[in-house]
Amino acid sequence: MIENYQFSSVLPTFASCADRYVLGGYGRGGTTMDEMLDLAVKVKDLDGLELVGGWHVNDQNIKEVGKKLKDRGFKLSMLVPDLWTQAKWGRGSIAATDPKTRQASVDEVRKCMDWAAELDCPYVDVWGGQDGYDYSFQADYVEVWKWMRESLHAMGEHTDKVKVLVEYKAREPRMRCFITNAATVLLLLRGLDKIGVVLDVGHALAAGENMAAAVALLASHGKLDYFHFNDNYRSWDDDMIVASVHLVETLELMYWIKRVGYKGWLSLDMFPYREDKVQAAIQAREWMKALLAAIDRVGMDKIDKVIKGNEGTEAVALVREALTGR
Amino acid sequence: MIENYQFSSVLPTFASCADRYVLGGYGRGGTTMDEMLDLAVKVKDLDGLELVGGWHVNDQNIKEVGKKLKDRGFKLSMLVPDLWTQAKWGRGSIAATDPKTRQASVDEVRKCMDWAAELDCPYVDVWGGQDGYDYSFQADYVEVWKWMRESLHAMGEHTDKVKVLVEYKAREPRMRCFITNAATVLLLLRGLDKIGVVLDVGHALAAGENMAAAVALLASHGKLDYFHFNDNYRSWDDDMIVASVHLVETLELMYWIKRVGYKGWLSLDMFPYREDKVQAAIQAREWMKALLAAIDRVGMDKIDKVIKGNEGTEAVALVREALTGR
Amino acid sequence: MIENYQFSSVLPTFASCADRYVLGGYGRGGTTMDEMLDLAVKVKDLDGLELVGGWHVNDQNIKEVGKKLKDRGFKLSMLVPDLWTQAKWGRGSIAATDPKTRQASVDEVRKCMDWAAELDCPYVDVWGGQDGYDYSFQADYVEVWKWMRESLHAMGEHTDKVKVLVEYKAREPRMRCFITNAATVLLLLRGLDKIGVVLDVGHALAAGENMAAAVALLASHGKLDYFHFNDNYRSWDDDMIVASVHLVETLELMYWIKRVGYKGWLSLDMFPYREDKVQAAIQAREWMKALLAAIDRVGMDKIDKVIKGNEGTEAVALVREALTGR
Amino acid sequence: MIENYQFSSVLPTFASCADRYVLGGYGRGGTTMDEMLDLAVKVKDLDGLELVGGWHVNDQNIKEVGKKLKDRGFKLSMLVPDLWTQAKWGRGSIAATDPKTRQASVDEVRKCMDWAAELDCPYVDVWGGQDGYDYSFQADYVEVWKWMRESLHAMGEHTDKVKVLVEYKAREPRMRCFITNAATVLLLLRGLDKIGVVLDVGHALAAGENMAAAVALLASHGKLDYFHFNDNYRSWDDDMIVASVHLVETLELMYWIKRVGYKGWLSLDMFPYREDKVQAAIQAREWMKALLAAIDRVGMDKIDKVIKGNEGTEAVALVREALTGR
Repeated sequence: MIENYQFSSVLPTFASCADRYVLGGYGRGGTTMDEMLDLAVKVKDLDGLELVGGWHVNDQNIKEVGKKLKDRGFKLSMLVPDLWTQAKWGRGSIAATDPKTRQASVDEVRKCMDWAAELDCPYVDVWGGQDGYDYSFQADYVEVWKWMRESLHAMGEHTDKVKVLVEYKAREPRMRCFITNAATVLLLLRGLDKIGVVLDVGHALAAGENMAAAVALLASHGKLDYFHFNDNYRSWDDDMIVASVHLVETLELMYWIKRVGYKGWLSLDMFPYREDKVQAAIQAREWMKALLAAIDRVGMDKIDKVIKGNEGTEAVALVREALTGR
Repeated sequence: MIENYQFSSVLPTFASCADRYVLGGYGRGGTTMDEMLDLAVKVKDLDGLELVGGWHVNDQNIKEVGKKLKDRGFKLSMLVPDLWTQAKWGRGSIAATDPKTRQASVDEVRKCMDWAAELDCPYVDVWGGQDGYDYSFQADYVEVWKWMRESLHAMGEHTDKVKVLVEYKAREPRMRCFITNAATVLLLLRGLDKIGVVLDVGHALAAGENMAAAVALLASHGKLDYFHFNDNYRSWDDDMIVASVHLVETLELMYWIKRVGYKGWLSLDMFPYREDKVQAAIQAREWMKALLAAIDRVGMDKIDKVIKGNEGTEAVALVREALTGR
Repeated sequence: MIENYQFSSVLPTFASCADRYVLGGYGRGGTTMDEMLDLAVKVKDLDGLELVGGWHVNDQNIKEVGKKLKDRGFKLSMLVPDLWTQAKWGRGSIAATDPKTRQASVDEVRKCMDWAAELDCPYVDVWGGQDGYDYSFQADYVEVWKWMRESLHAMGEHTDKVKVLVEYKAREPRMRCFITNAATVLLLLRGLDKIGVVLDVGHALAAGENMAAAVALLASHGKLDYFHFNDNYRSWDDDMIVASVHLVETLELMYWIKRVGYKGWLSLDMFPYREDKVQAAIQAREWMKALLAAIDRVGMDKIDKVIKGNEGTEAVALVREALTGR
Repeated sequence: MIENYQFSSVLPTFASCADRYVLGGYGRGGTTMDEMLDLAVKVKDLDGLELVGGWHVNDQNIKEVGKKLKDRGFKLSMLVPDLWTQAKWGRGSIAATDPKTRQASVDEVRKCMDWAAELDCPYVDVWGGQDGYDYSFQADYVEVWKWMRESLHAMGEHTDKVKVLVEYKAREPRMRCFITNAATVLLLLRGLDKIGVVLDVGHALAAGENMAAAVALLASHGKLDYFHFNDNYRSWDDDMIVASVHLVETLELMYWIKRVGYKGWLSLDMFPYREDKVQAAIQAREWMKALLAAIDRVGMDKIDKVIKGNEGTEAVALVREALTGR
């Protein structure tokens, strides 16, 4: 736990992270699932993990996986259907032009929902990273909207035991993705009451959003269900250690998480390519704790008051006091 | 007219454009309204103009302004309430923390609606350029949403003779504005059926949007009411000549304007700081005509087919054929 | 003084800041020079000010200005020739195509050097904000390089009493400026040994640079002569309060300023549009002091060691310890 | 040949491109070198190829590789040492903190120079994609400069038969790379007269540069030796088809290539992830030809005149006339 929040991480944070150049991975992480789990165990306070359906969980190993998690004291906080690592999804999953591919994405998610239910996991995360386009004149922006709604509706109807969440991202792997930001996902989910939202705060940054404003918007519309934490330089989803770049904005983010009364998981989605994976997770946790402590130092009431005052200089002074005590 | 579209421009395109350094303006434009109108007359095909309420139109001069426009053969395509050039709006208009300021913004817009009605102008453009924040911990993102909806609702109820349109922009003059992009404005206007949207295509670019996708999204939601045309380098609202930077994207934009059956105005919102103002408007018009001709060269059907094909290389070939005939 | 550094500010930080919309200024600042000076006096530890040649200093008032500064205990840390607020510079100053304009820029700077000498001011700041281009095919990138070197050489030869410094910036007011970043200015000044560099750290940010790396590069080449401090969101020169956005990077910047043994001025170049100007300067000072204290908390030696270690997780931990003590 | 230019491509343009999600590649390309070569043969006018040392060429296969190229009528335009696909380079090659790794990078490049000499290849391309940092306080910006110069000097001294070229890039795979842009590489190579520069025009775009201005700067300093062609959305090195996004800027680029009298290779460095690889190369070639034809349509003299005129509206008109004839 980090304060009142359950603390999780995607399992690949503990893998030997690869990119398009170093396809074999930069190393220092696990190769097998067991190795990754054994690294995860070293991160104190970690309550859960996210696994990828198909990679980590399948019909054959599901009981074994459940036991592996249980033995190490981990809950399964999220199961992520794999709609993006195989060439068959290269031109889209829930928004593919080909209706068979769209149906395949629905089937894949439903299969994951069943696995999730069996593993007492509350959520599946639908991330359409391949749903987008690369060039002008390559996508029918009107049609895809309908397709995405149909696909998501079909997923949501499958079972009420597991909730479907949508994770937005402005780009990568597709040069441009369709579900770019918080407002877009909320608009897309209009009327799809069973479907919720994952806020990956790095995706918010790379989409040019203010993370805190995204929290407020999603929470106001009843769709703030889950968090992915990381940081980046805003031009790409670098999946760096939490608060390592956008420290002031991450402080404001933590305030708004408290302010809107969020009660769910805080999960790491980091790719510490060249770093010690366990230390990367620990440093993320330490920053999250330090930021919550910084909020406590000045108190929610004072922050509320500064916000209501609208005076930039007071906002700047507040941040300094919260972080440094000066 | 440009093809079937009525062609307009904001009057300040013909002014001696100023920025924060050259407060007196770079010159080559008009200083008085008459001078600017006389420059506008030199732009063939120009059917209308946009004026700013308070600057160009007031209770005293309204009949005279109507006559000036009529004498030169111009319609008033849009009246823009001034919610952003006076220090009193510096901390916001429709989303100001101070309720009196919010009310003042409503009053200002209503006054403009009356003037617009008298001048047979169909629209007023509510652009909350000062509605935003500069620093973290300076805005209550939840409250402002309610305030903006209340303010806009109050405006919409004033009269049905003139339609209130909202123009979104991600930043400037405020470091960060609240109504950042197409999805956000659509979400904000949920249930506010009387209110429409102005798409300033340069604001879309600077918000990291694809202009064509913004057209599709707004049109699909019944809120594509008016266009501001210009171009920029994406990091700022440079208000440059149409198609001077994002040529491929502007071609795709013109296709989508036709595709969704838009019938309204195409209006220039350019700031040709150092340029001959008349030539700047003419060059914008010539590019718009050239792009529509490029679409005609290949035909809507072929474009539709390429889009449905999803093949990047065919999309690239299509653009070349449309623009160059090769 | 801030620690061992002399602390200054551009006088316009205390003005009623204007932008292209609110040409009359947002208020809360001084209008006359006396008013601005009287605000500056309220900022404890402020040792000097920067004035703009032509605006604040001219042949008539120079003695009076010297007295005004002296009476208030301010040194003149920098005199900035005005090469950017008048329409005559709209198409360039030191790199204008018109040779008479280039000569006029040289004359203007020489005049300022004489004034600076008389006022015991060590530097003039040549900032070619209008030297650039807006559109493709509008600049001869080869010729302008020669012109800039000729102009700067002519300035440097004028007198040895006052040093000419060049301030780089990637854009604004020109859409694209010629002297974009630290490496470009160093390359441009090859062989122009008398000319130095002003590092405006916000210009570095907006140019996509790492501020600390810019310090190291300039210092290694013997051209780190003066600092302008502020912050921004990287897409524009927002001239915000120091450390309000890029806190981690500003901490690293302060370390490198110490590390390279810089001994000169730290000067504020902020535009606190909507803020109390005195408070804005005070908050900037407080953050600079807090960051220097943070460095002292962990010590230069430990920082050196972490840098040499190249381990990202240790770098992240270092920042947290320095800022928060945790 | 494309007009007077020899036309080449990196061989991986014809591979089944992978990214960090689809590690197995998106398909439609070759897996073996022979398969890739057989795809390359289908691109008419292709005079040469670039291979990667260690991947495609080694001591065992060098004669065979020479024959494979010759049989298909290809020259080897460039050999690229692999300093970036193995975990051992993860923390840097020519700028690694560890001196053994730096020496290993020198040895690797020298080995490639020998292979290149044997294959009648004029250049090796030193791209330090891993030379940079991810976090603040992770790099000694002063030391690395010296190390890079030492490494490059040692490479340059190895043999005069093959020229060492440096390719700059602002980021990726490292979050931030050291040799970010044209001015930086020129500054770095001061006094290293044997070393030249590869301009990857997509790297220029992603670094926020104007490609044409980079050409002018490199050529003026005698270091414009080789070109990589592609396009992107400026936030990342997307390696897209030439001119598919930045059409106006690519037109200006082609003009400057002619203007500075460049006589070398124009080589494709594209990653057509989801596209038909042969068609991607063909479309790139067709755009390059179309742009050279557009320049011919208006003529170099007219372009020179417009540039000298500095008038934005004329520059905009010129682009339209060149591309569309209107």
